[in-house]
Amino acid sequence: MSHNSFGHLFRVTTWGESHGPALGCVVDGCPPGLRLDAADIQVWLDRRRPGQGRFVTQRQEPDQVRILSGVFEDARVRARFGGPVTTGTPIALMIDNVDARSRDYSEIAEAFRPWHADWTYFAKYGVRDYRGGGRASARETAARVAAGAIARKVLAGVTIRAALVQIGPHQVDRTRWDWAETGNNALFCPDAQTVPLWEDHLEAVRKAGSSTGAVVEVEAVGVPAGWGAPIYGKLDAELAAALMSINAAKGVEIGAGFASAALSGEENADEMRAPDPAAGEPGGPVFLSNQAGGILGGISTGQSVVARVAFKPTSSILTPRRSINEAGEEIELRTRGRHDPCVGIRAAPVVEAMTACVLADAYLRHRGQVGTPSGGL
Amino acid sequence: MSHNSFGHLFRVTTWGESHGPALGCVVDGCPPGLRLDAADIQVWLDRRRPGQGRFVTQRQEPDQVRILSGVFEDARVRARFGGPVTTGTPIALMIDNVDARSRDYSEIAEAFRPWHADWTYFAKYGVRDYRGGGRASARETAARVAAGAIARKVLAGVTIRAALVQIGPHQVDRTRWDWAETGNNALFCPDAQTVPLWEDHLEAVRKAGSSTGAVVEVEAVGVPAGWGAPIYGKLDAELAAALMSINAAKGVEIGAGFASAALSGEENADEMRAPDPAAGEPGGPVFLSNQAGGILGGISTGQSVVARVAFKPTSSILTPRRSINEAGEEIELRTRGRHDPCVGIRAAPVVEAMTACVLADAYLRHRGQVGTPSGGL
Amino acid sequence: MSHNSFGHLFRVTTWGESHGPALGCVVDGCPPGLRLDAADIQVWLDRRRPGQGRFVTQRQEPDQVRILSGVFEDARVRARFGGPVTTGTPIALMIDNVDARSRDYSEIAEAFRPWHADWTYFAKYGVRDYRGGGRASARETAARVAAGAIARKVLAGVTIRAALVQIGPHQVDRTRWDWAETGNNALFCPDAQTVPLWEDHLEAVRKAGSSTGAVVEVEAVGVPAGWGAPIYGKLDAELAAALMSINAAKGVEIGAGFASAALSGEENADEMRAPDPAAGEPGGPVFLSNQAGGILGGISTGQSVVARVAFKPTSSILTPRRSINEAGEEIELRTRGRHDPCVGIRAAPVVEAMTACVLADAYLRHRGQVGTPSGGL
Amino acid sequence: MSHNSFGHLFRVTTWGESHGPALGCVVDGCPPGLRLDAADIQVWLDRRRPGQGRFVTQRQEPDQVRILSGVFEDARVRARFGGPVTTGTPIALMIDNVDARSRDYSEIAEAFRPWHADWTYFAKYGVRDYRGGGRASARETAARVAAGAIARKVLAGVTIRAALVQIGPHQVDRTRWDWAETGNNALFCPDAQTVPLWEDHLEAVRKAGSSTGAVVEVEAVGVPAGWGAPIYGKLDAELAAALMSINAAKGVEIGAGFASAALSGEENADEMRAPDPAAGEPGGPVFLSNQAGGILGGISTGQSVVARVAFKPTSSILTPRRSINEAGEEIELRTRGRHDPCVGIRAAPVVEAMTACVLADAYLRHRGQVGTPSGGL
Repeated sequence: MSHNSFGHLFRVTTWGESHGPALGCVVDGCPPGLRLDAADIQVWLDRRRPGQGRFVTQRQEPDQVRILSGVFEDARVRARFGGPVTTGTPIALMIDNVDARSRDYSEIAEAFRPWHADWTYFAKYGVRDYRGGGRASARETAARVAAGAIARKVLAGVTIRAALVQIGPHQVDRTRWDWAETGNNALFCPDAQTVPLWEDHLEAVRKAGSSTGAVVEVEAVGVPAGWGAPIYGKLDAELAAALMSINAAKGVEIGAGFASAALSGEENADEMRAPDPAAGEPGGPVFLSNQAGGILGGISTGQSVVARVAFKPTSSILTPRRSINEAGEEIELRTRGRHDPCVGIRAAPVVEAMTACVLADAYLRHRGQVGTPSGGL
Repeated sequence: MSHNSFGHLFRVTTWGESHGPALGCVVDGCPPGLRLDAADIQVWLDRRRPGQGRFVTQRQEPDQVRILSGVFEDARVRARFGGPVTTGTPIALMIDNVDARSRDYSEIAEAFRPWHADWTYFAKYGVRDYRGGGRASARETAARVAAGAIARKVLAGVTIRAALVQIGPHQVDRTRWDWAETGNNALFCPDAQTVPLWEDHLEAVRKAGSSTGAVVEVEAVGVPAGWGAPIYGKLDAELAAALMSINAAKGVEIGAGFASAALSGEENADEMRAPDPAAGEPGGPVFLSNQAGGILGGISTGQSVVARVAFKPTSSILTPRRSINEAGEEIELRTRGRHDPCVGIRAAPVVEAMTACVLADAYLRHRGQVGTPSGGL
Repeated sequence: MSHNSFGHLFRVTTWGESHGPALGCVVDGCPPGLRLDAADIQVWLDRRRPGQGRFVTQRQEPDQVRILSGVFEDARVRARFGGPVTTGTPIALMIDNVDARSRDYSEIAEAFRPWHADWTYFAKYGVRDYRGGGRASARETAARVAAGAIARKVLAGVTIRAALVQIGPHQVDRTRWDWAETGNNALFCPDAQTVPLWEDHLEAVRKAGSSTGAVVEVEAVGVPAGWGAPIYGKLDAELAAALMSINAAKGVEIGAGFASAALSGEENADEMRAPDPAAGEPGGPVFLSNQAGGILGGISTGQSVVARVAFKPTSSILTPRRSINEAGEEIELRTRGRHDPCVGIRAAPVVEAMTACVLADAYLRHRGQVGTPSGGL
Repeated sequence: MSHNSFGHLFRVTTWGESHGPALGCVVDGCPPGLRLDAADIQVWLDRRRPGQGRFVTQRQEPDQVRILSGVFEDARVRARFGGPVTTGTPIALMIDNVDARSRDYSEIAEAFRPWHADWTYFAKYGVRDYRGGGRASARETAARVAAGAIARKVLAGVTIRAALVQIGPHQVDRTRWDWAETGNNALFCPDAQTVPLWEDHLEAVRKAGSSTGAVVEVEAVGVPAGWGAPIYGKLDAELAAALMSINAAKGVEIGAGFASAALSGEENADEMRAPDPAAGEPGGPVFLSNQAGGILGGISTGQSVVARVAFKPTSSILTPRRSINEAGEEIELRTRGRHDPCVGIRAAPVVEAMTACVLADAYLRHRGQVGTPSGGL
């Protein structure tokens, strides 16, 4: 990845800062002829918005997206497609920053918050824009969610959905997993009984001026076998990079992930049986388990692609912490501005978006090299 | 990454197959004027060789590397540098395959091993080279280790070392950690007391014709602050991709990794204090902990870069497993050929090598954009 | 290059369309700490503006640029640098489209102008935005000129300047070359005596509703030896791609260019002599000629980099031409809208800008790989 | 392009030096299932071999290519395809260097040949491999020709052919153009009457120990409309970079090229008429001329893609030239080794090969983004 872009055929470049006038992205390589309205993108941004619920940042952002290029509609196009379509040329999106109170950050103009990228940016560049965290801020991810909305259009037939599986030390009970539940609460929780447990935990954390981490799981259903390429174009490697690039991510695993280390070969191998046409099963092997998380040898197997991302506790905490400033003097720091007790919650739509972008790219690259959506049987 | 290459300025392209006549790599962008002999590379390959110890594959490979281009020596160079040096032009390396018994794989010419990439390669390409696992084989990693040896030359002042921290369900005791121990046993184990435990476990696994997973931890000491770039050039994202691309990897974490999710903000934040010149501490903050694993906001902090990679159990197991063949018929499969009970052991040098390549690339990219090894205080 | 970006370390992504609300670019990899105001960019855009003089398009565009990210200023920065500086993070620029009369193009909604990319876009994408030429329009180049302004900041010590050397069949007299002249006329002509000749030619062309081609020459003075890399990173190859990507470009040559074919080896070789310190000549060979155009083996020699770009006559002409429409019917086409008799005139600032971007990228890549601005004696 | 690779989906990495033991290339992204034998590649290398005819280097190189990976054959594959096929995994090729007399170059170990890249390599890297010109040598192009052979397999239905159109000051008469003639002489000349003129010229040049330049024209027939992408993925920009990267290239033009500058808009526009099914013309416009050289707006039109490359006179000449050495002393240089009076002759197969690689890449990228070989009518 270059600094500002990722992907190869379906390529996303994001720009803009949390406290600049706007932020946006450019999606290049999108196939032409796909129906695309700003509303198609807005719906995904709204899932992500801060201000929803007590447990996310109190900052108010409408996150209204505008499409500046790459789509077209006239009477003929409307008659043929029903609305604007992608032209195949780069799609530029822009989201205006509305609520940006920079006065909250003056205290740390010369200090390094120990939970933040202040020191590293300063060490690298020698100059640092300390307002609102600049690019390191989670608001940059709005652009990613917007790009992900376009990627989903490319991935017709694929469903991508994420859920939180852990907040702090509390994990969901996977035996009670219900995807529909994630739409019933503000925490993307798939286990109804865990929701009050998490809410109590977050309330306590918020009151203490502290923060807590989380683990997000994402699943992509309907990915055919054959996406990804061996060695360095591996689908899991591309996913790992995309997910690790999300603000506050500290770990990525695929399928059984770190638990694989303790499995035996027999436990880990996903056996196959023949499909049953009578049961409506299409051609290709039917897997009896999915420890692999849908990826083997860097290529999709046709099973659900499953990954998990670990998010560390939010950077902005209200408890004073030891640090130093640019002059090398020891100080104590705490911020008084907006405070997000668990950034992992809002990361769920971002995890989905990055997964969508990586899959869209893998799909187009596969189609480019091989010509068909998937080969094999 | 393209299929066959990774990196941006320090760019590595590997080629060749396990059962072809040779395999190799090309390293592009290496700075000129670095001393480099084939022996400098060979030492790292020898650490990786199969055939060392009872617990790795019984295949005998001398893995002799030859440098085909990119280094130069004449009398003047010898007088000035002491031996051959890199010219700055691409360095091509080649390793001949000596011991490749393809007869072991005839049984699976038309069958899909459930623990292997057979099905995915066939689904993607419609044709499959089943001999020895082709590119999916761990032997491809010899080329990576060779590239890593060159990367280490670029990273003068940085020490990169890996250790196994878990085999099967057995983790090391971190309170007894001694890096020197990793050189005293064949398992890269840093905890002397865990070695016999692992040996017993592996013996049992081998006798049962089974396999077991592992977790490898890598540490890079001496990385200055400032390497990596925000958003999509993040050092941890690049590391994640590189490490996840290693054969059998299923998870990558940085610093506290997945454990971050359960930490509070106060526990997770690495506080800083001022350096003590009297104690020989150079300028820049001294961190009081390293939950971050040396990377914040995608940029190195100056602390050790610490990552962990989870490896699933080896693909080749001797217990029959259910599968299907290309005709869709149900079969049982077991291989009789060479059998590696724990591929994670030999992955340790590969983890080091990939880490070295990513860091070398990040160093050159930083130097390119900013001009100095690191800015800041 | 991907579709929407070019460059490797100094990477430029442009977006937007001629008849959308705005267009812009993102420059990634710019070194930090460089002084940069919107005015620094505006001056270069103003040189390019349509509406200057009778001979360019009558469209009125203020081309006001805004910097949305990547620069920062507070009291300390102002005190230290004198104004805003680049932060090292991506720089997003935006230029609003003010004057966009789309009604001029309705006639060709379903027809393919034979002098335009209408047919090729339709053949490729199956859908076509015919308004104003979309991305194929010369207005997209405003974004390039903006990026070039930033590149010039990176290239302190290098002067980049372009001149027209030919309009239609009329070439300048190189014995009368005076760079200062290019600022005295609207045609970037370095030969005062040729100006009236060109003006007459253009007047006749404009009245006839026709168009004419041009050749632009660019020179970069102060490029040290050592930029560019052999084989596929060659500076001349990168320049060729960047210049050929300019709208209407049909040929690129370096130094003696196509005339090299007719030279003998003796005539073509640029001999060298030793520098004369008494005459203030720095170390390194002094070349006695510059047939090479400043590049040998893909690497800069330290001499001026010289290239020429040929531009075909403008697409929009008022004489009816034979063509077909999407239904396959034969038609005659002529446009009534704005009409640019010689797009090559306005291309001069774009040629400079692309040259600046390529050189900035080569400089950073060289610095990344080798560490010093240039090696050698 | 990175230093050592070019292309995006169909990606070529070359390695090796003129005086090392071997050189080779890796082709990544080739579609699977294409028939490929070493003989298919060898035939194109043999067209390029030095030693054919009096007018090329007297060096004797069998240029035997070996395929090390990326193809596969067993009984089933043979029955289905007729022989080995590409697997879709990277294809590694190697060509052994047989005849490499390095003693010819000792004189210039510390001197800079004014016609060569000696000074620039030294300036860039501080160290220089002077034997045989290293990577700058024309022998590196053998690897490109090999890659081009594979690209041709991807481009079934496309014919790529090159001819010399000028040697020294002598141009062919285009009215006598006969492609079949290029196979009847050693100069790739399409005009039988020009051959003796060129032979006399070359004989005189060779005897004088001088060298002469050339212009090569390449044509790709059968390229459908739609390949290439706007702005920076332009087919002509990619071609320009690829062709300019060939050793000794100093100019590239497409279609009418530099002559476009003197054309009027009416002369330059390629008019279109409707196809005549009765005459066997497929759908899509029929162009009445091809000033565009088959590319408009960076995308192929369906007409022949036509480009020309100018080559400067060969570097190695036998007349003493002024230069300096590393110590800054003035010297005279002449080489006594092998001497190629016109490198442009052997460049013709290389021009074809690079054109093939660029087109194969454009084809796969188009197929990846859009899904069909070409859209439109």
